[in-house]
Amino acid sequence: MRAYDILLRKRQGNELSPEEIKWLVDGYTKGAIPDYQMAAWAMAVFFQGMSPAETAALTMAMADSGPRLDLSAIPGIKVDKHSTGGVGDKTTLVLAPLVAAAGVPVAKLSGRGLGHTGGTIDKLESIPGFRAELPTAQFLRIVREIGVAVASATESLAPADKKLYALRDATATVESIPLIAASILSKKIAGGADAIVFDVKCGLGAFMVDEGEGRTLARLLVESCRKAGRHACALLTSMDQPLGRTIGNALEVQEAIATLKGQGPKDLRELCLALGSEMLYLAGKAATPEEGQGILARLLDSGAALAKMVQWFKAQGGDPQVIDDPELLPQPTTVVQVKASQPGYVTALNARELALVVMALGAGRATKDDPIDPTAGIVLAKKTGDYVETGEVLATLQNRGTIDQDKVHRVERSFQIGDRPGPKPLILERIPANSNPSA
Amino acid sequence: MRAYDILLRKRQGNELSPEEIKWLVDGYTKGAIPDYQMAAWAMAVFFQGMSPAETAALTMAMADSGPRLDLSAIPGIKVDKHSTGGVGDKTTLVLAPLVAAAGVPVAKLSGRGLGHTGGTIDKLESIPGFRAELPTAQFLRIVREIGVAVASATESLAPADKKLYALRDATATVESIPLIAASILSKKIAGGADAIVFDVKCGLGAFMVDEGEGRTLARLLVESCRKAGRHACALLTSMDQPLGRTIGNALEVQEAIATLKGQGPKDLRELCLALGSEMLYLAGKAATPEEGQGILARLLDSGAALAKMVQWFKAQGGDPQVIDDPELLPQPTTVVQVKASQPGYVTALNARELALVVMALGAGRATKDDPIDPTAGIVLAKKTGDYVETGEVLATLQNRGTIDQDKVHRVERSFQIGDRPGPKPLILERIPANSNPSA
Repeated sequence: MRAYDILLRKRQGNELSPEEIKWLVDGYTKGAIPDYQMAAWAMAVFFQGMSPAETAALTMAMADSGPRLDLSAIPGIKVDKHSTGGVGDKTTLVLAPLVAAAGVPVAKLSGRGLGHTGGTIDKLESIPGFRAELPTAQFLRIVREIGVAVASATESLAPADKKLYALRDATATVESIPLIAASILSKKIAGGADAIVFDVKCGLGAFMVDEGEGRTLARLLVESCRKAGRHACALLTSMDQPLGRTIGNALEVQEAIATLKGQGPKDLRELCLALGSEMLYLAGKAATPEEGQGILARLLDSGAALAKMVQWFKAQGGDPQVIDDPELLPQPTTVVQVKASQPGYVTALNARELALVVMALGAGRATKDDPIDPTAGIVLAKKTGDYVETGEVLATLQNRGTIDQDKVHRVERSFQIGDRPGPKPLILERIPANSNPSA
Repeated sequence: MRAYDILLRKRQGNELSPEEIKWLVDGYTKGAIPDYQMAAWAMAVFFQGMSPAETAALTMAMADSGPRLDLSAIPGIKVDKHSTGGVGDKTTLVLAPLVAAAGVPVAKLSGRGLGHTGGTIDKLESIPGFRAELPTAQFLRIVREIGVAVASATESLAPADKKLYALRDATATVESIPLIAASILSKKIAGGADAIVFDVKCGLGAFMVDEGEGRTLARLLVESCRKAGRHACALLTSMDQPLGRTIGNALEVQEAIATLKGQGPKDLRELCLALGSEMLYLAGKAATPEEGQGILARLLDSGAALAKMVQWFKAQGGDPQVIDDPELLPQPTTVVQVKASQPGYVTALNARELALVVMALGAGRATKDDPIDPTAGIVLAKKTGDYVETGEVLATLQNRGTIDQDKVHRVERSFQIGDRPGPKPLILERIPANSNPSA
């Protein structure tokens, strides 16, 4: 095979064979195919797209570019959940103990913050003592013993994806739906998932702003999983406003704890039940997603999910006292309120702008190794659909440094005030499991 | 500026500014912009195209990436002719002395064979003693003294074009009409041309097979020239069958000489008069192309053009005796006839296949420094529209080595025999000078 011919065939709009894709990815991983040929190929893919079969082939080739995580020592169907990244999205913190309490093994690899969205690992590391960097043997042992562990993804997982992503980032080829899908899937499959529930977010605060593109990605993810021999299902969810009422690492841990105590915000609970029930269904623990919702609601209400969180935090070295007493989480030294300058309904909330303010408050990294302020964040007193009086608190900003007036103004301007409430539904569409996993 | 932003803008279908294009080309030439970004850009250009203004900006940026050849010491309007490459195309060998005889200075830089088509320099070097590698001063002196010189293009001309072409060649981005146009134009402008006549060939034997694409290229070349401040004109010509009756270096020199003696094939004479008359018109030596045709026909018939060829060969060290006695050109040791196995009209002639056979006979190079056999070639006894009897000679193959039966069969199969003649016209369309140069 010649890289030139593969490139030409893709440029001409042909479907590449799995062999061609594997040859390309392997050659690129070991340096036999230069960056410039791969960059031209990625741009051709941007314009010509890839079929689900091609996406699945790219996924498997990238998943196999390094050693896969072997979860075979853990009994049961390992179901992973993947979110395409949102603002205030702490669902993993709730779902991990919740579905583990239902008997679904959770062996989750997660990432740090990327772009304007926070990362699960950064959130967990705000818990005193919590260790997210676990040797594989210890990670697997914890899952076997208590049913749940969340660790930082290792560098060796799907190295071809890392190399290709860096190249796409420099060549304006990130925004290709099949390349996004293969990048997501390759890491999940390298991480050992048997089945995957996708939370594809669209709207102002998501990477994918357009709902139509989000739907295309969701469908391609589910269909490519099928071609790759993995059960899958996706929910298309709105990320026009942040999820829940907090943005920021320690704040989000606190809100996840509250949710497991039955005191969390309605939208977060709704999304966790929806995603969790799909996980139970794919794991064969519920005959239907509806049955899964009932199981999970009972585990939340009985305190069983909260008890699982205590076990989990403890197993990874985290102080479980934070669950009883959230004051033990890192606390800010500066707190500033943002007040409404006019009365009315909150008609929209700019999630992306709020996320950028939280980054600027200290929650984000400029470079990979920058330290972050775990207390930096925003608490939303009002969300879309709420009514607010002039002078009432819209939000609170917090960190361990100073907070300038500019950030206060940016948050204020993120609230759109009008005369009628009009929130969109949170869950826009369900792209169902491609086949009945129990069949 | 950032390469990423320029790439993204092109990917999104925006028109780049001349400043952006110049910044990109300059950065690429000096190595500040890596191959992979330029490769992704070229692929984005393949899909999104470039406007004439962008093409002109790319042309000028590449023309200025190295020193330009300064022809200002030569009085008069320097009109260059450029062919996009055909099979059996020896027009430069005829045109150079012909238009020089009409008083248009010819300071032509030319290339060696590329792909399946021969190069003017390779053809000239089959003349005993002929030197195509001339120091610039000597090249200019010869043009000043006798009005004509044809030299090998130096490595330093338009280095950005060389670098980008090599990259396009490895990334399946050669077939982009605006990139082809800018590549052609940049070399012509770096070579000092004031005005350019393009011979854009289309058909089986041309780089551009499709007539519609050829027309697009011809129009873009003329329009980009206008934007770059150069007068131009293009003829769209058919390259379904070879031009003239010979393919091969020494054979083509011999046919060019015959044409200047009034004994050449009709199609070659027709094309030389058409292209030459456009050159005279752009040079201000004829009020109309039609007047130019008359001037050139008289120079051919009077022997003035042939006398100019004698001067020219002599000035570049070539043996002018070859003009009187073509036997002094390199002669083959093996000659094989190809005969018709059925009677009928020649309805088509596969120019590309014939060119590939000529390469295989020894006229082509596998690598840049390979020696070539100047005698290797094909003489066509029959062309499209001719009638042939069974057993009559269709063509003769020749070289200084052996000729296997496979090549004979390939040539035989290149002739399509049918029951009606039906040749296409040679000159398909004239894309006129964008403005009257004498105005």
